[in-house]
Amino acid sequence: MHVFYTPDINSNNYTLNEEESKHCSKVLRLGVGDVVHLIDGRGGLYKAQINEASKKHVQLLVIEHQKEYGKRNHHLHIAIAPTKNIDRLEWFLEKATEIGIDEFTPIICDRSERKIIKEERLEKVITSAVKQSLTAYHPQLNKAISFADFITKNKETEKFIAHCMDGAKPYINQIVNIHQSYLILIGPEGDFTPAELNVALQNGYKPVTLGNTRLRTETAALAACFELNFINR
Amino acid sequence: MHVFYTPDINSNNYTLNEEESKHCSKVLRLGVGDVVHLIDGRGGLYKAQINEASKKHVQLLVIEHQKEYGKRNHHLHIAIAPTKNIDRLEWFLEKATEIGIDEFTPIICDRSERKIIKEERLEKVITSAVKQSLTAYHPQLNKAISFADFITKNKETEKFIAHCMDGAKPYINQIVNIHQSYLILIGPEGDFTPAELNVALQNGYKPVTLGNTRLRTETAALAACFELNFINR
Repeated sequence: MHVFYTPDINSNNYTLNEEESKHCSKVLRLGVGDVVHLIDGRGGLYKAQINEASKKHVQLLVIEHQKEYGKRNHHLHIAIAPTKNIDRLEWFLEKATEIGIDEFTPIICDRSERKIIKEERLEKVITSAVKQSLTAYHPQLNKAISFADFITKNKETEKFIAHCMDGAKPYINQIVNIHQSYLILIGPEGDFTPAELNVALQNGYKPVTLGNTRLRTETAALAACFELNFINR
Repeated sequence: MHVFYTPDINSNNYTLNEEESKHCSKVLRLGVGDVVHLIDGRGGLYKAQINEASKKHVQLLVIEHQKEYGKRNHHLHIAIAPTKNIDRLEWFLEKATEIGIDEFTPIICDRSERKIIKEERLEKVITSAVKQSLTAYHPQLNKAISFADFITKNKETEKFIAHCMDGAKPYINQIVNIHQSYLILIGPEGDFTPAELNVALQNGYKPVTLGNTRLRTETAALAACFELNFINR
Protein backbone atom coordinates (compact mmCIF):
# COMPACT_ATOMS: atom_id res chain seq x y z
CA MET A 1 0.00 0.00 0.00
CA HIS A 2 1.58 3.30 -1.11
CA VAL A 3 0.73 6.24 1.12
CA PHE A 4 1.25 9.95 0.51
CA TYR A 5 0.84 12.68 3.08
CA THR A 6 -1.33 15.43 1.56
CA PRO A 7 -2.25 17.94 4.27
CA ASP A 8 -3.42 20.52 1.69
CA ILE A 9 -5.95 18.29 -0.13
CA ASN A 10 -9.28 20.11 -0.58
CA SER A 11 -11.03 18.57 -3.59
CA ASN A 12 -11.24 15.31 -5.52
CA ASN A 13 -8.28 16.30 -7.64
CA TYR A 14 -4.81 16.40 -6.20
CA THR A 15 -1.44 16.95 -7.77
CA LEU A 16 1.58 15.58 -5.95
CA ASN A 17 4.43 18.04 -5.53
CA GLU A 18 7.61 17.58 -7.55
CA GLU A 19 9.42 15.48 -4.94
CA GLU A 20 6.45 13.19 -4.28
CA SER A 21 5.73 12.93 -8.03
CA LYS A 22 9.26 11.78 -8.63
CA HIS A 23 8.99 9.28 -5.78
CA CYS A 24 5.69 7.98 -7.16
CA SER A 25 6.67 7.61 -10.80
CA LYS A 26 10.40 6.91 -10.59
CA VAL A 27 10.93 5.06 -7.28
CA LEU A 28 7.61 3.27 -6.89
CA ARG A 29 7.20 3.02 -10.71
CA LEU A 30 3.48 3.70 -10.52
CA GLY A 31 1.58 4.83 -13.58
CA VAL A 32 -1.87 5.79 -14.91
CA GLY A 33 -4.60 3.61 -13.38
CA ASP A 34 -2.61 2.61 -10.31
CA VAL A 35 -4.20 3.26 -6.92
CA VAL A 36 -2.53 5.00 -3.97
CA HIS A 37 -3.65 6.15 -0.52
CA LEU A 38 -3.56 9.68 0.79
CA ILE A 39 -3.80 10.90 4.37
CA ASP A 40 -4.42 14.52 5.27
CA GLY A 41 -3.24 14.39 8.89
CA ARG A 42 -6.69 15.42 10.15
CA GLY A 43 -8.39 12.03 10.03
CA GLY A 44 -9.02 11.84 6.29
CA LEU A 45 -8.01 8.65 4.45
CA TYR A 46 -8.37 8.75 0.67
CA LYS A 47 -8.08 6.15 -2.05
CA ALA A 48 -6.97 7.82 -5.28
CA GLN A 49 -6.22 6.73 -8.83
CA ILE A 50 -3.39 8.10 -10.94
CA ASN A 51 -4.86 10.08 -13.85
CA GLU A 52 -1.69 11.51 -15.29
CA ALA A 53 1.91 10.60 -14.53
CA SER A 54 5.12 12.27 -15.55
CA LYS A 55 8.41 12.55 -13.70
CA LYS A 56 7.55 15.88 -12.11
CA HIS A 57 3.78 15.84 -12.15
CA VAL A 58 1.49 13.08 -10.88
CA GLN A 59 -2.20 13.92 -10.88
CA LEU A 60 -4.67 11.95 -8.79
CA LEU A 61 -8.44 11.51 -8.69
CA VAL A 62 -9.98 10.63 -5.32
CA ILE A 63 -12.27 7.60 -5.66
CA GLU A 64 -12.99 6.98 -1.98
CA HIS A 65 -12.86 9.22 1.09
CA GLN A 66 -13.12 8.04 4.67
CA LYS A 67 -13.41 10.64 7.45
CA GLU A 68 -12.22 10.32 11.03
CA TYR A 69 -10.16 7.25 10.15
CA GLY A 70 -8.72 5.72 13.34
CA LYS A 71 -10.18 8.51 15.47
CA ARG A 72 -8.65 8.44 18.93
CA ASN A 73 -10.79 8.30 22.08
CA HIS A 74 -8.47 10.47 24.19
CA HIS A 75 -5.96 13.26 23.77
CA LEU A 76 -2.36 12.52 24.71
CA HIS A 77 0.27 15.23 25.04
CA ILE A 78 3.80 14.34 26.11
CA ALA A 79 6.21 17.10 27.11
CA ILE A 80 9.75 15.73 27.07
CA ALA A 81 13.18 17.15 27.78
CA PRO A 82 15.19 16.63 24.55
CA THR A 83 17.83 13.94 24.97
CA LYS A 84 21.53 14.77 24.70
CA ASN A 85 21.76 12.34 21.77
CA ILE A 86 19.05 13.58 19.42
CA ASP A 87 18.61 10.10 17.85
CA ARG A 88 16.96 9.00 21.07
CA LEU A 89 14.38 11.77 20.88
CA GLU A 90 13.79 11.00 17.21
CA TRP A 91 13.08 7.36 17.83
CA PHE A 92 10.69 8.27 20.61
CA LEU A 93 8.80 10.53 18.18
CA GLU A 94 8.70 7.74 15.59
CA LYS A 95 7.53 5.06 18.03
CA ALA A 96 4.99 7.27 19.82
CA THR A 97 3.51 8.24 16.45
CA GLU A 98 3.13 4.56 15.56
CA ILE A 99 1.55 3.69 18.91
CA GLY A 100 -0.67 6.77 19.16
CA ILE A 101 -0.10 10.31 20.38
CA ASP A 102 -1.58 13.73 19.67
CA GLU A 103 0.90 16.34 20.78
CA PHE A 104 4.60 16.64 21.60
CA THR A 105 6.34 19.55 23.33
CA PRO A 106 10.12 19.63 23.85
CA ILE A 107 10.71 21.28 27.25
CA ILE A 108 14.06 22.73 28.25
CA CYS A 109 14.73 21.95 31.91
CA ASP A 110 17.40 23.12 34.38
CA ARG A 111 19.40 19.94 33.87
CA SER A 112 18.86 19.64 30.10
CA GLU A 113 22.19 19.11 28.39
CA ARG A 114 20.55 19.90 25.04
CA LYS A 115 18.95 23.33 24.88
CA ILE A 116 18.44 23.70 21.13
CA ILE A 117 16.56 21.44 18.73
CA LYS A 118 15.74 21.61 15.03
CA GLU A 119 11.97 21.28 14.77
CA GLU A 120 11.99 20.77 10.96
CA ARG A 121 14.02 17.58 11.27
CA LEU A 122 11.77 16.23 14.03
CA GLU A 123 8.69 17.14 11.98
CA LYS A 124 10.01 14.98 9.14
CA VAL A 125 10.52 12.03 11.48
CA ILE A 126 6.90 12.32 12.63
CA THR A 127 5.49 12.62 9.10
CA SER A 128 7.46 9.60 7.99
CA ALA A 129 6.07 7.56 10.89
CA VAL A 130 2.54 8.80 10.09
CA LYS A 131 2.90 7.45 6.54
CA GLN A 132 4.51 4.20 7.69
CA SER A 133 1.88 3.45 10.31
CA LEU A 134 -1.06 4.84 8.34
CA THR A 135 -2.04 7.09 11.21
CA ALA A 136 -4.59 9.47 9.75
CA TYR A 137 -4.07 12.05 12.49
CA HIS A 138 -0.70 13.78 12.27
CA PRO A 139 0.60 14.49 15.80
CA GLN A 140 1.36 18.12 16.51
CA LEU A 141 4.91 19.11 17.36
CA ASN A 142 5.04 22.29 19.41
CA LYS A 143 8.01 24.64 19.55
CA ALA A 144 10.55 23.95 22.28
CA ILE A 145 9.80 25.96 25.40
CA SER A 146 11.40 26.41 28.82
CA PHE A 147 9.99 24.37 31.70
CA ALA A 148 9.09 27.58 33.56
CA ASP A 149 7.12 29.00 30.64
CA PHE A 150 5.42 25.70 29.87
CA ILE A 151 4.29 24.61 33.30
CA THR A 152 1.63 27.25 33.94
CA LYS A 153 -0.07 27.18 30.55
CA ASN A 154 -1.66 23.75 30.04
CA LYS A 155 -5.27 23.07 29.26
CA GLU A 156 -5.29 19.27 29.75
CA THR A 157 -7.65 17.78 32.35
CA GLU A 158 -5.22 15.20 33.76
CA LYS A 159 -1.60 16.15 34.27
CA PHE A 160 1.25 13.92 35.44
CA ILE A 161 4.93 14.28 36.16
CA ALA A 162 7.18 11.19 35.98
CA HIS A 163 10.22 11.75 38.18
CA CYS A 164 12.85 9.65 39.98
CA MET A 165 12.93 11.42 43.36
CA ASP A 166 11.64 9.87 46.57
CA GLY A 167 7.99 10.18 47.57
CA ALA A 168 4.65 8.45 46.99
CA LYS A 169 4.22 7.75 43.29
CA PRO A 170 1.33 5.58 42.09
CA TYR A 171 1.20 4.04 38.63
CA ILE A 172 -0.75 6.11 36.10
CA ASN A 173 -3.42 3.41 35.80
CA GLN A 174 -4.12 3.66 39.53
CA ILE A 175 -5.21 7.30 39.39
CA VAL A 176 -6.29 7.99 35.81
CA ASN A 177 -9.77 8.44 34.35
CA ILE A 178 -10.34 7.11 30.85
CA HIS A 179 -11.12 9.14 27.71
CA GLN A 180 -9.64 12.38 28.99
CA SER A 181 -7.01 14.79 27.74
CA TYR A 182 -3.68 13.91 29.33
CA LEU A 183 -0.38 15.68 29.69
CA ILE A 184 2.75 13.94 30.95
CA LEU A 185 6.08 15.55 31.77
CA ILE A 186 9.24 13.51 31.18
CA GLY A 187 12.50 14.99 32.50
CA PRO A 188 16.07 15.08 31.19
CA GLU A 189 18.80 12.46 31.77
CA GLY A 190 19.55 13.90 35.24
CA ASP A 191 15.83 14.17 36.18
CA PHE A 192 13.88 17.29 37.08
CA THR A 193 15.24 19.42 39.92
CA PRO A 194 13.36 19.43 43.26
CA ALA A 195 12.37 23.03 42.48
CA GLU A 196 10.87 22.02 39.12
CA LEU A 197 8.97 19.18 40.79
CA ASN A 198 7.54 21.63 43.34
CA VAL A 199 6.35 24.02 40.65
CA ALA A 200 4.69 21.12 38.82
CA LEU A 201 2.93 19.96 41.99
CA GLN A 202 1.71 23.50 42.66
CA ASN A 203 0.28 23.56 39.14
CA GLY A 204 -1.78 20.41 39.62
CA TYR A 205 0.55 17.77 38.19
CA LYS A 206 0.35 14.39 39.91
CA PRO A 207 3.61 12.48 40.47
CA VAL A 208 3.65 9.00 38.92
CA THR A 209 6.00 6.07 38.46
CA LEU A 210 6.41 4.12 35.23
CA GLY A 211 7.86 0.97 36.78
CA ASN A 212 10.58 -0.41 39.03
CA THR A 213 13.51 -0.24 36.63
CA ARG A 214 15.59 2.82 35.79
CA LEU A 215 14.30 3.96 32.40
CA ARG A 216 16.10 6.24 30.00
CA THR A 217 14.28 9.50 29.15
CA GLU A 218 12.98 8.24 25.81
CA THR A 219 12.01 4.82 27.21
CA ALA A 220 10.07 6.47 30.02
CA ALA A 221 8.23 8.67 27.55
CA LEU A 222 7.33 5.70 25.36
CA ALA A 223 6.23 3.65 28.38
CA ALA A 224 3.84 6.47 29.33
CA CYS A 225 2.54 6.58 25.75
CA PHE A 226 1.96 2.79 25.72
CA GLU A 227 0.27 2.88 29.10
CA LEU A 228 -2.25 5.60 28.26
CA ASN A 229 -3.12 4.01 24.92
CA PHE A 230 -3.54 0.66 26.65
CA ILE A 231 -5.76 2.07 29.40
CA ASN A 232 -7.98 3.76 26.77
CA ARG A 233 -8.37 0.71 24.51
CA MET B 1 25.59 5.31 40.90
CA HIS B 2 28.35 3.38 39.13
CA VAL B 3 27.39 -0.14 38.12
CA PHE B 4 29.60 -3.00 36.93
CA TYR B 5 28.37 -6.25 35.45
CA THR B 6 30.17 -9.11 37.24
CA PRO B 7 28.59 -12.43 36.18
CA ASP B 8 31.53 -14.43 37.62
CA ILE B 9 31.43 -13.01 41.15
CA ASN B 10 31.59 -15.83 43.74
CA SER B 11 33.03 -14.36 46.95
CA ASN B 12 33.30 -11.07 48.82
CA ASN B 13 36.41 -10.14 46.91
CA TYR B 14 36.23 -9.22 43.26
CA THR B 15 38.82 -7.88 40.86
CA LEU B 16 37.56 -5.96 37.85
CA ASN B 17 39.05 -7.08 34.54
CA GLU B 18 41.54 -4.82 32.78
CA GLU B 19 38.97 -2.98 30.67
CA GLU B 20 36.59 -2.36 33.58
CA SER B 21 39.50 -1.40 35.86
CA LYS B 22 40.59 1.21 33.35
CA HIS B 23 37.04 2.49 33.07
CA CYS B 24 36.71 2.65 36.86
CA SER B 25 40.00 4.35 37.64
CA LYS B 26 40.63 6.45 34.53
CA VAL B 27 37.18 7.37 33.17
CA LEU B 28 35.14 7.47 36.37
CA ARG B 29 38.20 8.56 38.39
CA LEU B 30 37.22 6.42 41.37
CA GLY B 31 39.79 5.47 43.99
CA VAL B 32 40.29 3.61 47.27
CA GLY B 33 37.27 3.97 49.58
CA ASP B 34 34.79 4.82 46.83
CA VAL B 35 31.65 2.68 46.58
CA VAL B 36 30.30 1.04 43.41
CA HIS B 37 27.47 -1.38 42.62
CA LEU B 38 27.82 -4.80 41.03
CA ILE B 39 25.16 -6.95 39.39
CA ASP B 40 25.69 -10.61 38.56
CA GLY B 41 22.84 -11.02 36.05
CA ARG B 42 21.16 -13.67 38.22
CA GLY B 43 19.36 -11.38 40.66
CA GLY B 44 22.33 -10.41 42.84
CA LEU B 45 22.92 -6.73 43.61
CA TYR B 46 26.12 -5.91 45.51
CA LYS B 47 27.49 -2.78 47.10
CA ALA B 48 31.29 -2.88 47.06
CA GLN B 49 34.13 -0.65 48.19
CA ILE B 50 37.35 -0.11 46.30
CA ASN B 51 40.25 -1.62 48.25
CA GLU B 52 43.01 -1.18 45.74
CA ALA B 53 43.05 0.85 42.56
CA SER B 54 45.57 0.99 39.75
CA LYS B 55 45.05 1.59 36.04
CA LYS B 56 44.78 -2.10 35.22
CA HIS B 57 43.69 -3.58 38.50
CA VAL B 58 40.78 -2.47 40.69
CA GLN B 59 40.04 -4.70 43.66
CA LEU B 60 36.70 -4.58 45.44
CA LEU B 61 35.32 -5.75 48.77
CA VAL B 62 31.60 -6.53 48.91
CA ILE B 63 29.97 -4.73 51.85
CA GLU B 64 26.32 -5.50 51.07
CA HIS B 65 24.62 -8.26 49.06
CA GLN B 66 20.95 -8.30 48.06
CA LYS B 67 19.53 -11.47 46.45
CA GLU B 68 16.64 -11.71 43.99
CA TYR B 69 16.78 -7.95 43.41
CA GLY B 70 13.80 -6.90 41.24
CA LYS B 71 12.70 -10.52 40.82
CA ARG B 72 10.15 -10.80 38.03
CA ASN B 73 6.75 -12.41 38.59
CA HIS B 74 6.50 -13.94 35.10
CA HIS B 75 8.76 -15.23 32.34
CA LEU B 76 8.70 -13.37 29.04
CA HIS B 77 10.32 -14.73 25.88
CA ILE B 78 10.06 -12.80 22.62
CA ALA B 79 11.06 -14.48 19.36
CA ILE B 80 11.56 -11.82 16.71
CA ALA B 81 12.57 -11.84 13.07
CA PRO B 82 15.73 -9.68 12.86
CA THR B 83 15.04 -6.37 11.14
CA LYS B 84 16.71 -5.51 7.84
CA ASN B 85 18.29 -2.50 9.55
CA ILE B 86 20.02 -4.06 12.56
CA ASP B 87 19.82 -0.78 14.54
CA ARG B 88 16.11 -1.37 14.87
CA LEU B 89 16.64 -4.79 16.45
CA GLU B 90 19.31 -3.36 18.72
CA TRP B 91 17.08 -0.66 20.06
CA PHE B 92 14.34 -3.19 20.70
CA LEU B 93 16.81 -5.27 22.75
CA GLU B 94 17.86 -2.18 24.69
CA LYS B 95 14.32 -1.00 25.39
CA ALA B 96 12.91 -4.44 26.21
CA THR B 97 15.78 -4.97 28.68
CA GLU B 98 14.94 -1.67 30.36
CA ILE B 99 11.21 -2.46 30.55
CA GLY B 100 11.60 -6.13 31.53
CA ILE B 101 12.18 -9.32 29.54
CA ASP B 102 13.78 -12.72 30.20
CA GLU B 103 14.63 -14.27 26.86
CA PHE B 104 15.14 -13.24 23.23
CA THR B 105 15.36 -15.53 20.21
CA PRO B 106 16.07 -14.19 16.72
CA ILE B 107 13.99 -16.30 14.30
CA ILE B 108 14.71 -16.47 10.59
CA CYS B 109 11.43 -16.53 8.67
CA ASP B 110 10.58 -17.11 5.00
CA ARG B 111 10.30 -13.38 4.35
CA SER B 112 13.25 -12.32 6.51
CA GLU B 113 15.52 -10.03 4.53
CA ARG B 114 18.23 -10.47 7.14
CA LYS B 115 19.32 -14.07 7.66
CA ILE B 116 22.54 -13.55 9.61
CA ILE B 117 23.13 -11.72 12.86
CA LYS B 118 26.12 -11.19 15.10
CA GLU B 119 25.11 -12.37 18.55
CA GLU B 120 28.18 -10.87 20.28
CA ARG B 121 27.20 -7.36 19.26
CA LEU B 122 23.61 -7.88 20.41
CA GLU B 123 24.83 -9.35 23.70
CA LYS B 124 26.79 -6.15 24.34
CA VAL B 125 23.71 -4.02 23.71
CA ILE B 126 21.76 -6.07 26.25
CA THR B 127 24.50 -5.94 28.89
CA SER B 128 24.81 -2.20 28.46
CA ALA B 129 21.05 -1.82 29.00
CA VAL B 130 21.23 -4.10 32.05
CA LYS B 131 23.83 -1.81 33.62
CA GLN B 132 21.98 1.35 32.61
CA SER B 133 18.64 0.22 33.97
CA LEU B 134 20.05 -1.65 36.98
CA THR B 135 18.19 -4.81 36.01
CA ALA B 136 19.69 -7.52 38.20
CA TYR B 137 18.52 -10.29 35.87
CA HIS B 138 20.42 -10.36 32.58
CA PRO B 139 18.06 -11.41 29.75
CA GLN B 140 19.18 -14.47 27.81
CA LEU B 141 19.90 -14.10 24.10
CA ASN B 142 19.49 -17.38 22.26
CA LYS B 143 21.20 -18.24 19.00
CA ALA B 144 19.32 -17.34 15.82
CA ILE B 145 17.22 -20.26 14.59
CA SER B 146 14.94 -20.94 11.64
CA PHE B 147 11.20 -20.52 12.16
CA ALA B 148 10.64 -24.19 11.28
CA ASP B 149 13.16 -25.43 13.85
CA PHE B 150 11.96 -23.05 16.52
CA ILE B 151 8.22 -23.50 16.35
CA THR B 152 7.95 -27.07 17.66
CA LYS B 153 10.34 -26.76 20.59
CA ASN B 154 8.91 -24.33 23.11
CA LYS B 155 8.24 -24.97 26.74
CA GLU B 156 6.27 -21.82 27.58
CA THR B 157 2.72 -22.21 28.90
CA GLU B 158 1.14 -19.34 26.93
CA LYS B 159 2.18 -18.82 23.32
CA PHE B 160 1.10 -16.04 20.97
CA ILE B 161 1.71 -15.04 17.39
CA ALA B 162 1.24 -11.38 16.37
CA HIS B 163 0.48 -11.21 12.65
CA CYS B 164 -1.15 -8.79 10.21
CA MET B 165 -3.29 -11.21 8.21
CA ASP B 166 -7.10 -11.27 8.38
CA GLY B 167 -8.90 -13.31 11.02
CA ALA B 168 -10.10 -13.02 14.61
CA LYS B 169 -7.33 -11.57 16.75
CA PRO B 170 -8.04 -10.56 20.34
CA TYR B 171 -5.73 -8.33 22.33
CA ILE B 172 -3.27 -10.25 24.54
CA ASN B 173 -4.92 -8.92 27.71
CA GLN B 174 -8.24 -10.42 26.65
CA ILE B 175 -6.95 -14.01 26.66
CA VAL B 176 -3.91 -14.05 28.93
CA ASN B 177 -3.49 -15.48 32.44
CA ILE B 178 -1.19 -13.61 34.80
CA HIS B 179 2.13 -14.84 36.24
CA GLN B 180 2.80 -17.41 33.53
CA SER B 181 5.66 -18.09 31.15
CA TYR B 182 4.90 -16.40 27.83
CA LEU B 183 6.29 -16.67 24.34
CA ILE B 184 5.42 -14.21 21.58
CA LEU B 185 6.36 -14.46 17.93
CA ILE B 186 6.97 -11.23 16.01
CA GLY B 187 7.38 -11.52 12.24
CA PRO B 188 9.62 -9.79 9.70
CA GLU B 189 8.85 -6.56 7.81
CA GLY B 190 6.67 -8.43 5.28
CA ASP B 191 4.88 -10.47 8.02
CA PHE B 192 4.80 -14.23 8.46
CA THR B 193 3.64 -16.30 5.49
CA PRO B 194 0.18 -17.97 5.70
CA ALA B 195 2.05 -21.33 5.88
CA GLU B 196 4.09 -20.14 8.89
CA LEU B 197 0.92 -18.91 10.59
CA ASN B 198 -0.70 -22.32 10.08
CA VAL B 199 2.24 -24.15 11.59
CA ALA B 200 2.14 -21.82 14.60
CA LEU B 201 -1.59 -22.38 15.09
CA GLN B 202 -1.07 -26.16 14.88
CA ASN B 203 1.55 -25.84 17.61
CA GLY B 204 -0.76 -24.08 20.04
CA TYR B 205 0.10 -20.41 19.36
CA LYS B 206 -2.84 -18.04 19.72
CA PRO B 207 -3.13 -15.19 17.19
CA VAL B 208 -3.21 -11.72 18.76
CA THR B 209 -3.33 -8.08 17.72
CA LEU B 210 -1.22 -5.34 19.28
CA GLY B 211 -3.41 -2.41 18.23
CA ASN B 212 -5.11 -0.71 15.29
CA THR B 213 -2.11 0.99 13.74
CA ARG B 214 0.49 -0.59 11.47
CA LEU B 215 3.49 -1.17 13.72
CA ARG B 216 7.03 -1.79 12.56
CA THR B 217 8.55 -5.13 13.62
CA GLU B 218 10.53 -3.66 16.50
CA THR B 219 7.65 -1.46 17.68
CA ALA B 220 5.30 -4.46 17.71
CA ALA B 221 7.79 -6.46 19.75
CA LEU B 222 8.20 -3.65 22.26
CA ALA B 223 4.42 -3.15 22.47
CA ALA B 224 4.05 -6.86 23.35
CA CYS B 225 6.81 -6.54 25.96
CA PHE B 226 5.19 -3.51 27.50
CA GLU B 227 1.74 -5.11 27.51
CA LEU B 228 2.82 -8.28 29.31
CA ASN B 229 4.79 -6.36 31.91
CA PHE B 230 1.80 -4.08 32.45
CA ILE B 231 -0.65 -6.98 32.82
CA ASN B 232 1.66 -8.63 35.39
CA ARG B 233 2.25 -5.52 37.51
